[in-house]
Amino acid sequence: MPEEESKQELDIDHLQDLVAQQGDTVRALKADESPNQAAISQAIETLKQLKIDLNAEITRRKASGDSMIKSKEDFRVKVANSLESRLFYIPSFKIYGGVGGLYDYGPPGCAVKANVQKIWRQHFVIEESMLEVECPSVTLGTVLKASGHVDRFTDLMVKDAKTEECFRADHLLGDRLEELIADPATRKDEKAEFEMLYARLDELKEEEMKMALKRCGCVSPETKNELSDPYPFNLMFPTTIGPSGNIQGFLRPETAQGMFVNFRELLYFNGGKLPFACAQIGQSFRNEIAPRAGLLRVREFTQAEIEHFCHPTKKDHPRFNEVAQVELNLFSQEAQLQAGKKEPFRMKTGEAVEKGIIANETLAYFVARTHLFLKELGVDMQRVRFRQHLRHEMAHYAQDCWDAEIECSYGWIECVGLADRSAFDLDAHSKASKVDLQAYELFDEPVEEVIFEVKMNKQILGKSFKKDQKFVIDALTSLDEAAAAKIEKDFEDKGETDLENVQGIDGGKATITKDMVIEMKKKTKKVSGRNFTPSVIEPSFGIGRIMYCLFEHAFYVREGDDENKAVFKLPPQVAPIKCTIFPLVNNAEMNAASHDIYKSLTKLAVSVKLDTTAISIGKRYCRTDELGVPFAITIDHRTIGHTSTPKDGTVTVRERDSCEQVRIKVDDVAKFIADLSSGEVEWSRATASLEKVLNTAE
Amino acid sequence: MPEEESKQELDIDHLQDLVAQQGDTVRALKADESPNQAAISQAIETLKQLKIDLNAEITRRKASGDSMIKSKEDFRVKVANSLESRLFYIPSFKIYGGVGGLYDYGPPGCAVKANVQKIWRQHFVIEESMLEVECPSVTLGTVLKASGHVDRFTDLMVKDAKTEECFRADHLLGDRLEELIADPATRKDEKAEFEMLYARLDELKEEEMKMALKRCGCVSPETKNELSDPYPFNLMFPTTIGPSGNIQGFLRPETAQGMFVNFRELLYFNGGKLPFACAQIGQSFRNEIAPRAGLLRVREFTQAEIEHFCHPTKKDHPRFNEVAQVELNLFSQEAQLQAGKKEPFRMKTGEAVEKGIIANETLAYFVARTHLFLKELGVDMQRVRFRQHLRHEMAHYAQDCWDAEIECSYGWIECVGLADRSAFDLDAHSKASKVDLQAYELFDEPVEEVIFEVKMNKQILGKSFKKDQKFVIDALTSLDEAAAAKIEKDFEDKGETDLENVQGIDGGKATITKDMVIEMKKKTKKVSGRNFTPSVIEPSFGIGRIMYCLFEHAFYVREGDDENKAVFKLPPQVAPIKCTIFPLVNNAEMNAASHDIYKSLTKLAVSVKLDTTAISIGKRYCRTDELGVPFAITIDHRTIGHTSTPKDGTVTVRERDSCEQVRIKVDDVAKFIADLSSGEVEWSRATASLEKVLNTAE
Repeated sequence: MPEEESKQELDIDHLQDLVAQQGDTVRALKADESPNQAAISQAIETLKQLKIDLNAEITRRKASGDSMIKSKEDFRVKVANSLESRLFYIPSFKIYGGVGGLYDYGPPGCAVKANVQKIWRQHFVIEESMLEVECPSVTLGTVLKASGHVDRFTDLMVKDAKTEECFRADHLLGDRLEELIADPATRKDEKAEFEMLYARLDELKEEEMKMALKRCGCVSPETKNELSDPYPFNLMFPTTIGPSGNIQGFLRPETAQGMFVNFRELLYFNGGKLPFACAQIGQSFRNEIAPRAGLLRVREFTQAEIEHFCHPTKKDHPRFNEVAQVELNLFSQEAQLQAGKKEPFRMKTGEAVEKGIIANETLAYFVARTHLFLKELGVDMQRVRFRQHLRHEMAHYAQDCWDAEIECSYGWIECVGLADRSAFDLDAHSKASKVDLQAYELFDEPVEEVIFEVKMNKQILGKSFKKDQKFVIDALTSLDEAAAAKIEKDFEDKGETDLENVQGIDGGKATITKDMVIEMKKKTKKVSGRNFTPSVIEPSFGIGRIMYCLFEHAFYVREGDDENKAVFKLPPQVAPIKCTIFPLVNNAEMNAASHDIYKSLTKLAVSVKLDTTAISIGKRYCRTDELGVPFAITIDHRTIGHTSTPKDGTVTVRERDSCEQVRIKVDDVAKFIADLSSGEVEWSRATASLEKVLNTAE
Repeated sequence: MPEEESKQELDIDHLQDLVAQQGDTVRALKADESPNQAAISQAIETLKQLKIDLNAEITRRKASGDSMIKSKEDFRVKVANSLESRLFYIPSFKIYGGVGGLYDYGPPGCAVKANVQKIWRQHFVIEESMLEVECPSVTLGTVLKASGHVDRFTDLMVKDAKTEECFRADHLLGDRLEELIADPATRKDEKAEFEMLYARLDELKEEEMKMALKRCGCVSPETKNELSDPYPFNLMFPTTIGPSGNIQGFLRPETAQGMFVNFRELLYFNGGKLPFACAQIGQSFRNEIAPRAGLLRVREFTQAEIEHFCHPTKKDHPRFNEVAQVELNLFSQEAQLQAGKKEPFRMKTGEAVEKGIIANETLAYFVARTHLFLKELGVDMQRVRFRQHLRHEMAHYAQDCWDAEIECSYGWIECVGLADRSAFDLDAHSKASKVDLQAYELFDEPVEEVIFEVKMNKQILGKSFKKDQKFVIDALTSLDEAAAAKIEKDFEDKGETDLENVQGIDGGKATITKDMVIEMKKKTKKVSGRNFTPSVIEPSFGIGRIMYCLFEHAFYVREGDDENKAVFKLPPQVAPIKCTIFPLVNNAEMNAASHDIYKSLTKLAVSVKLDTTAISIGKRYCRTDELGVPFAITIDHRTIGHTSTPKDGTVTVRERDSCEQVRIKVDDVAKFIADLSSGEVEWSRATASLEKVLNTAE
């Protein structure tokens, strides 16, 4: 039975790849301009079969105690145990039972976060002289109305008609459709219909969702009560500003809007010159209906966002040559849509722009800079890819979008979004606030522009348009060549014409009759520059997600021991505490020496932990390893002298991952650790000339 | 007319002192255990007269163009102009008209804030190994109910009955009382009554306020409409968590609560040992009814708070000797209440504790550390005082409170609060969450404790107390000697006794009859330790207020010039940008040299600004002075060589406040600036051996 054999050979990873590829195929088919519904149905059928195979295989392996599956699950649990027990994270308000999607950073988590932000600020803000701002979390509703968040930042929700329990409509419908599709009693034509619905689950609008829930007989999953109609639930936390209750506010869903609304000020600050980049690190808030995936989907999180404002047609970058040779792991649209194995590929940044894979230099520059940033943090770059958004994933105004995805036990996680958003945001705020958010461009030399002088009969215009007359006049005095030609032709054909998009007039439409216009004359004019709305390129970092992936990548269990020795091999710059100080035994002299070293290190801005507990050095090393502390200083008998040991004024320093130990003079140790902690000197170089000591404690 | 003469001699400062002193007198009289109402009335009368004198004097001087008054006002306007035009601050959502009490930090403000926070973190968190945490802004209502904020974090508000405009009740009543007191038609007995009310303005409870508003005939100030009854308006921004709308949340009014609720975890993290300190920097929110005083009273602000947990009766501090010699400017209760001139005095920290002026070493340690922190930031320490709260200003549980007040054009501003809050917060959360928030103390040696073995008749007890029986049994098995004696006496006297404060029983009271207790026997037991609720000492910093005062202290206008040359003399560590780089003329070679220096500096984490505009160096210096940039590098003909000038590879470096200029090699300049910027090396020392150049540009 060769088939049986081949099934046994399938490993889980391969099956997962097949599922992912087939998922991409379905997406690609749906992205077609004229989707072939039969082919989509077929592809979904294949996808479902693959998923069933995969799940069966996983269940079989689990039952037989397969080590790979078990180790993946074990791994996540072990990381979570270390993170929670060492207070990297704490569920917020834990003594009150907590609430979903809100977490505290405990001391080591908070320190790592400060380090990640410091590296981010150095890498982006300082090295590129970005204009950093800080705006409040409480945001005026008007701002978020203009940005589209009030109307569109929603998920469809349904409620249990009796208990009022809330559910995400797409989750409920999806679960129900899976049941129906799997049910042998479902007729073949119905099955095809359900499969189509399933494929379109994330696209359904309110009315369609309502019909679909009815059609499928969805009820509340536990109580089997009826459901309310689905309605959009806005994911912003609402509040009111001031005592009257009349000023609607929200907690910002992203930090970006604060930068857009300050564009005019920032342009002025930059001397009126483009391009420039603005940056902001701060809290954002999303009131998820049902937060899941632990630390990856939370209700309050830290974003670090950049808005790079530039000319809409000149998106070259002055420092592009510095990153042109950086090799990226790219998962382009083409790679995602190609038949067969879909895999990212490695390519230099310069080449990716030359070949048109990344839309422009500036976007590519930030992709490469993001790559370098993640590398500096200590993320495993074998598990980072830049995935381009497929056409249908992008908003209509977006020019090109790439996500930095990092692989962890939850799969590939979107940690950074890099998008060329064109002029969308500035246009939206300019329109809503009626404030000009444009930049001025001086041409290299003046250009000739064709204009049309229109002599109007203002009496007739006035009668027809009354107070709107001035808007019509504005429209007629700013005609371009094509519009003028159309008007002349319309006058000839039918004696009147319709002006569209007339600013200031309801609906934007104005019908102009021939008698309103006395004469139209073409003229040329020298123009030395023009106003334009800049494009914005937006790299947006989810600090918490990056940190979580980093923790998984840094985690390992030291081998060759009975005990569970968990280690976070965080790079020194990221590590929460740089150095632990241990007096070998708890006596006054050793404690005093420890305190002196402690103070000399903290004065150099090195965060240290003094551990004077009486347990064995080996156990104390374990504790410090699980906190990710890269270096440990032990004060022993040689440091202070003892009956049988002459005092030589040295201490041992141990490195976390190699467990190597060297001896160094007390007077030199602070500078030695400070240099290692800043990441500028590596352990092997720093210790080349030092006395190595045998590690007896571990 | 000697009186006339002496009036003319009164300067404004002296009058202001008199008003302040008289205000203190009134406060002191009110703080008396049995207040003398007649004396209070008298003192208020004097206070009012002094205020009238002061206002008259100010008005007179203003009218006559008095330079001192004018210069004070001018000064504030000038600082505000520089801060706003250079984007230290921007009113939030400015293009939408803004909203009261919300401000953005623009690029220089944001950079200064990051520096202040970095210095704070180094000074407190790193140097003292504090446990830093980060908790969400969105906070569960339950937490803030337990802390008292839901019930008591309010101001009394009234509304215009027709327009619904909102007012702070105390503001309206105060204004009305001033009118009535000044009105010659007011009868003498009424006047006394109004004065009493005026003195008690900030103490009036809801019902009293209602009566007072009615009694005084208060109406809406503009419309003269009737007012609603006053009601407490909670100053927390409300929101809801999750989709159901049933989980009440608030934006936290302070960062402290997140630390209290994590006490158990933090104690465990610290190995169960006290004392330890926890710290948090983050946003806090207060929905002020009417935000005023510009940047000093805002609706969203950054706090940096420390909660130092320690033994309630052992408040010595292990590092106290390090600060014992620090001289403080103390404005103690006694100094505020003494007759005559009330002035702060200078005293060493150690002496202040010895003399019992500051309650304990730990609180004094943080007062001194705060002093050192403010000094490091560059605050003018002549304008800093630590004011002790008067007894009636403190909450009932507070042991001692001191505010670091900084003087600016708005007066003395509370910028840091330092309070010994005893066990209040942990007790409140322990009670509400039913989670033990105690620490364990091992006695130096076991102590004998007297206990009472009580043999009970559980049948009778059960009949009387049913399910509450166990609470009564708990209470009876933990009697101390005095309680046991009281019970025995009560049994003898009247055959029954009332137990008070019985945990778990409504009202806490249980009546025990003699027949419920069969026997009570005194015994002794060896006890080796005990559980106790730690005290907390809380230093709480308002980052924005400190920054504003610092800006005022750093601001000056350079003399000897026609033009308005504003300068912020911020210390290098605090300055938003450390160095500006100017090519003398805008040519390719100078620009290239500038870019190289720019990159070498940013790589050393020094924030720089490259200014290649074609305006004069003098004007460029002005711009950079107003941003507080301490150093400027100019690339000129000597740097790169020119027809008449041989190339020597040096640049000039100019210091902001002295305007001194030196020449230094291009290769050395990055390290030179980096060392100066970190504040470790001073200009005079760093330039001792360098070539000084004549300043021709300024």
